[in-house]
Formats: sequence, C-alpha cells, structure tokens
Amino acid sequence: MGSTSNGVAGDLTTNCNGVSVDKGVDFANYFCTYGFLYHQKEMLCDRVRMDAYYNAIFQNKEHFHGKAVLDVGTGSGILAIWSAQAGARKVYAVEATKMTEHARELVKANNLQDVIEVIEGSMEDVTLPEKVDIIISEWMGYFLLRESMFDSVIFARDRWLKPDGIMYPSHARMWMAPMRSGLGDQKMDDYEVAMNDWHSFVDDTKTYYGVDMSVLTKPFDDEQKKYYLQTSLWNNLHPQQIIGTPAIIKEINCLTASVNDVLNVSSNFPSSITERTRLCGLAGWFDVHFRGNRDYPAKHEIELTTAPSLDNGTHWGQQVFLLHPPVRVSEGDDLMVSFSMSRSKENHRLMEVELGYKYFDSTLKTVFAEEITTEPVSLCWSCFGATLKV
Amino acid sequence: MGSTSNGVAGDLTTNCNGVSVDKGVDFANYFCTYGFLYHQKEMLCDRVRMDAYYNAIFQNKEHFHGKAVLDVGTGSGILAIWSAQAGARKVYAVEATKMTEHARELVKANNLQDVIEVIEGSMEDVTLPEKVDIIISEWMGYFLLRESMFDSVIFARDRWLKPDGIMYPSHARMWMAPMRSGLGDQKMDDYEVAMNDWHSFVDDTKTYYGVDMSVLTKPFDDEQKKYYLQTSLWNNLHPQQIIGTPAIIKEINCLTASVNDVLNVSSNFPSSITERTRLCGLAGWFDVHFRGNRDYPAKHEIELTTAPSLDNGTHWGQQVFLLHPPVRVSEGDDLMVSFSMSRSKENHRLMEVELGYKYFDSTLKTVFAEEITTEPVSLCWSCFGATLKV
Repeated sequence: MGSTSNGVAGDLTTNCNGVSVDKGVDFANYFCTYGFLYHQKEMLCDRVRMDAYYNAIFQNKEHFHGKAVLDVGTGSGILAIWSAQAGARKVYAVEATKMTEHARELVKANNLQDVIEVIEGSMEDVTLPEKVDIIISEWMGYFLLRESMFDSVIFARDRWLKPDGIMYPSHARMWMAPMRSGLGDQKMDDYEVAMNDWHSFVDDTKTYYGVDMSVLTKPFDDEQKKYYLQTSLWNNLHPQQIIGTPAIIKEINCLTASVNDVLNVSSNFPSSITERTRLCGLAGWFDVHFRGNRDYPAKHEIELTTAPSLDNGTHWGQQVFLLHPPVRVSEGDDLMVSFSMSRSKENHRLMEVELGYKYFDSTLKTVFAEEITTEPVSLCWSCFGATLKV
Repeated sequence: MGSTSNGVAGDLTTNCNGVSVDKGVDFANYFCTYGFLYHQKEMLCDRVRMDAYYNAIFQNKEHFHGKAVLDVGTGSGILAIWSAQAGARKVYAVEATKMTEHARELVKANNLQDVIEVIEGSMEDVTLPEKVDIIISEWMGYFLLRESMFDSVIFARDRWLKPDGIMYPSHARMWMAPMRSGLGDQKMDDYEVAMNDWHSFVDDTKTYYGVDMSVLTKPFDDEQKKYYLQTSLWNNLHPQQIIGTPAIIKEINCLTASVNDVLNVSSNFPSSITERTRLCGLAGWFDVHFRGNRDYPAKHEIELTTAPSLDNGTHWGQQVFLLHPPVRVSEGDDLMVSFSMSRSKENHRLMEVELGYKYFDSTLKTVFAEEITTEPVSLCWSCFGATLKV
C-alpha cells in the first residue's frame, strides 16, 4: 500500500494557501470569519448542534447549579447564556473576535450580566479570577479537527479547569466509510473542461501573440488536478450513499487528550462493502458526546453526530475524499483503507491528508492472496481548504 | 450634499476585511492570488488587455530596440517576453510570487534567457545593475486603483528609470457615469430574504431555546445592508446601460504621478441624463494610454479601455455602485455627483468610497433653484472587497 505526499493546499477560491502563511496571517484569516453575525446565525440555525448542547445542559442542570463555567470561543454567547440559565454561579465567556460586543448586548438583553462575564481575547492570553468547574465549548471544525480550535480548549483545560472539572463535550470520535456520489464525475468533467480550455489558450497565444506557453501545461495540469480532483469536499450525504461499514478512526477523551494527540490522525481500517455499486471515495464525519466525568457522570448522556442523515443534517456536513476513477465493487468485497491526516505546514488550521486503499474482490477469492502484492492505488488529497462555506 | 463614511469593508465571502489586517496579512492575501497559473491564464485570456500591450510594444518597436526594460510584476513573464521579442537588449522581470519559477521556464522555452532576467522579490527590495529606458507594467486593478500596485510602479520609476525614460502605459484615466441595472433589485431582494430569515430565526430561538436574540437585529441588519446594498459590484455592463454622459474623475500621468496623487480620488462632476429610465447607480471604469514621452512619442498611440462594450469586455469589467432605491429620471435631467475614494485603513489595497448626488429635474425648472437646498441623498459604499473574481 503506497501513497504520495503533497504539501500544497489546493484552494483557489477562498484563502491564501498557495503561499507560506505566518501565524499572524492565519490568525486574521481564521478569526475574521467569526466576526460576522451572518456566520454566527448559520451556526445558531443548526438545529442538531443547538439541540445537542441545549439538551446536554438542561438535562444535566445539576452539573451547572452554583458552578463556575468557562465557555471557550463563546461567539454570540449562546452556550454561556444557557449555562447561566441552567443555574451557573459564574460564566466566563471568552472570545477572540469583536463578536464580544454582540455577546455582551445579548447577555444584557437576557438579563444575565450579573452571571456572565464576556472577555475579549485569545484563550491563551486571558486571565480568570478562579478555576472553573466546567469548560464548555463548541470547538469542532469540519471533520472535527479543521481549524485546530481544540488546541485552545486543551490549553484552557490545563490552565483553568479544576482537577475534578467536567468537559462539555467530554468525548469525540472521527468516522470514515466508503461512499458513492456523482460529485467525482462532475469534478472530473470540470477538470477536463479546464484542460481543454488550456490547450486552446496555448494554441491561441502561439498564433496571435507569438509566445509558446506549452512549457506551462504540466504545472497548470498539476494545479488543476489539485484543485478539482485532490481537494476534499464538503457534502451533506444521503445515508444510502454510504456503501460500506463505517469505522472509527480516532477517539478523543477531551479530559485527557493533549495537543500531540490531535496533531496527526492515522488509521488503517477495514470496511466491508454492503452493495453492488461504484466506490467513489471515502466520507469522513465525527460525533461528540456529553457524558460528564467519572465523579459526576451525566444523568442524561447526549450525542451530537454529523453522520449522513436524512432529516438531521448539520452545517458540518461530511468531508468527502474522492477517488478518481471510481471502482466497481460488490457486496462482500473488502477494503483496507490507510488514512493519515496532519496539519498543513503552511496553515496549521488546515489539514493534509494521505489516503490509500487495498481492495479485495470477493468473487475472485482464489487470487485474493496473490492480489495483495499488486501495486496499490494511491491517493492524495491536500487539505480541506476549499470547503469553508460562508 | 452630505454623505456618511463607513470604515468597514463589507465582504463576507472572500477575504478578511472585517478585522484589522496588518501589512504582513495583506501581503500574503494579495500576492497569493497571483501565485496560481489559473489566475495568470485569466489575465492572459483577456484579449483587450493582450492586444493593447502587444500592439503598444510591437507598433513602437523603436522604443525597445537595444534598450533596457523593467517589467514590474511580470507574472508569467508575457510583457518581458514581448519586450525582448521587440528588440530589447535586456529585460528585468520582477515578480514577488513563486510565479517566477513558471516565468523562467517560459522565458527559456521561448529562447530568451540571454535577454530576460527573472527576479523574485518585491520591487521595493530588488537591486538592478543599471537604470532602465522603459518601465512596462500591467498594474491596473479593479476601477484602476484597487490593489494599489501602482505604488510599486512609482517606486520603480523613481529608483530605476533614466531621466528620459518611458512609461508603458504612460497615462491613465478614471471614468464614471450614471447607469441602470437589474442588479440593485436583485440585491434588495437578497437583503429582504436575509432579514425575513433573521426574524424567523429570532422567533424560533426564543420559542425553542429560551434566548431573546432581538437585540442583535439592528447589528445584523447593518451587516446585511453593508454586504448586499453598500458594497460595490463587479459587472460587465452593456453600453446601453449607461444612461448619462460619462465624466473623467481622475487623470494620471504615469511619468510624474506620486503616491500621494493616487491615495485619494475626489471629484465633483456633472452628468446629463440621456434617456427616460431608472437611475440605478453609478458605474466606474478606466482607460490607459501608451503615448511614449515628450522626447520619444509613440509612433502609434494605443489605448486600453475598460468602458462598457458589446464585443470588447475585459476581466476588469466595470465597478458598479448601486443606489437604493433607484430614481426615475428623464432625458435632459442633470446630476451633480460627488465622489470620494480613499484607501481602507484596514487594508490599503482596498478602497472606501463616499458618493453623493444632487438631482435636477428638467421638467420642474421653476423649482430648480429652490430644490438645490433640499437635503441631498447620500450614499456610502465600503470598498470593492466583494468583487475579486478568482
């Protein structure tokens, strides 16, 4: 099983991933998005997200009663407000963007200014007057780890959570499964149109302007391949598009995980194909759980899942890693997938992915053992850059 | 005539204009765009742009013969290559992005490596072995000055152009004219949909989650207004959408202009309405000319115009500043427009615009003199942030 590595993020449309981006740049690129109410509203309209946190808090009010709470990245302040309404004695609501101004207005309009203190600043720079009983945060990015905001939650936990404190959420898991989709055909068409267009351009430039551009055909092709074919996509999949058994590729205990634990995600996992169809790629999603801790288990455990769902889609959707070309598969076939994700060197809030797989055809069982040594298909996707929906 | 100023760029979709952006951030945001061949190709496919430079060079080859040329922001290297093909002794092709790698390949593929030296770096940091006879550059941004790349051309001129040197182009002008368009109705619809949606959201959040969000209605409204109604738009207008006499609002002599001269553009100009229709806004565009200089005038003066055109649209298009609501106007009516544009404090490559107008109704000539004292309509647009097409 082999795979090729690729260090360049392939997003031509939104951000600045083709050049080295220093921390200052990334800071601005990252936090600016959260400075708009439009974006806050998008998250506040995600009913799956809202219901999960709302139920986690109000069905476990005894966790909050009389306690000190820290909300990391409070945004408009919704989790801080619920924590206060659930009976918290004090809530520290930390937010790095100017959204703090709106959060303060909202706190006041809901008459909670005596309980909630909105603090503008990076979690890493903020000083609180006390340690807290609960850290609550909605820190999850696309495919859980894009954005790397969990780093700030880990920092907050190590610095400000009491030894017997509770994390909300307490656990997180990443999932992957084989999928089918028309997306890949569409992307392949787009890529081919772009390349045909390029070839006409090269001809025209030679004819009309006397300059031979053909030496750039290879680099242009690389750039377009990366953009159209090797960048993962945001999608809200229909459950029936999942065509094999899903696998957990990462489990995180929010109370104990270190930054090192989430720098890389590597997993080799099997999946059994469940129908005769085309294998078009792999889909990734996550779930988080609110279980309290050992001393204070949740009375009602709540789950927030971003798995493909008919009725309960989320703004996170799923992250799709396409396979070009698709592969014919049948029920009973087996895949062995090798997945590896690490932070982009150019922008630590983006991820680079290497993905490879071996495929065992159930109808050719006799050659199964020999096939294992054939040259593997190798895939490579470069980050989730193109998928930020704003 | 009054107008309100607004310091926030209203772009929710591309860049990071809602927060303070330091020079490093802007540098990366700006130059990254030009690091992709996709973007280079878009400019190289602009036939109006290509023809103008090609004709300016090859119809004035005597300017180039045996001379030293500096190409500021060479990109893929096309202007450097043409300069060399036209007979230049030496061409220094300066480019800040990694596009230099492709430019070098292209130079070599066209067998011009002995004439053209591709130099990677900011114009401000580069050292040349000699002063040059010609500075050529395609530095024009949307509505001429967006991107502020002209600063680097001015720097290059003052530092590296011989006293009798020639600028390519030599002159630039900015134009404005009244226009009609359905764009404004569409934007107003979008805005109203967004606000209706917001009101439902406020109701739902109160009902389902016990939090009163109504205090954020005003700031959300402000944000949406800015985004949908107060941000100028890129458009390729039909010439018939221009409904009044165009006016020149700025003239730049590239040989003598200073950075100070282009920091702000202010103009009060009249325009006569030429048909009975709706005045929906103002359109802005630019042209540049290749005239050589006093000692070495161009044998063939070439013009590159981005005015509305049926057959000769450019990638620059026009910049549209919408008026909400539109105003009924008739042939013979007069407008007096007050336009002021300055660089955004947050990002000097973006512009902030204040625009006001007085309107004289030709059918009410008797009240004309009195009307002049009525409260003027005032408009404000905040930069061109939303119009970067990549």
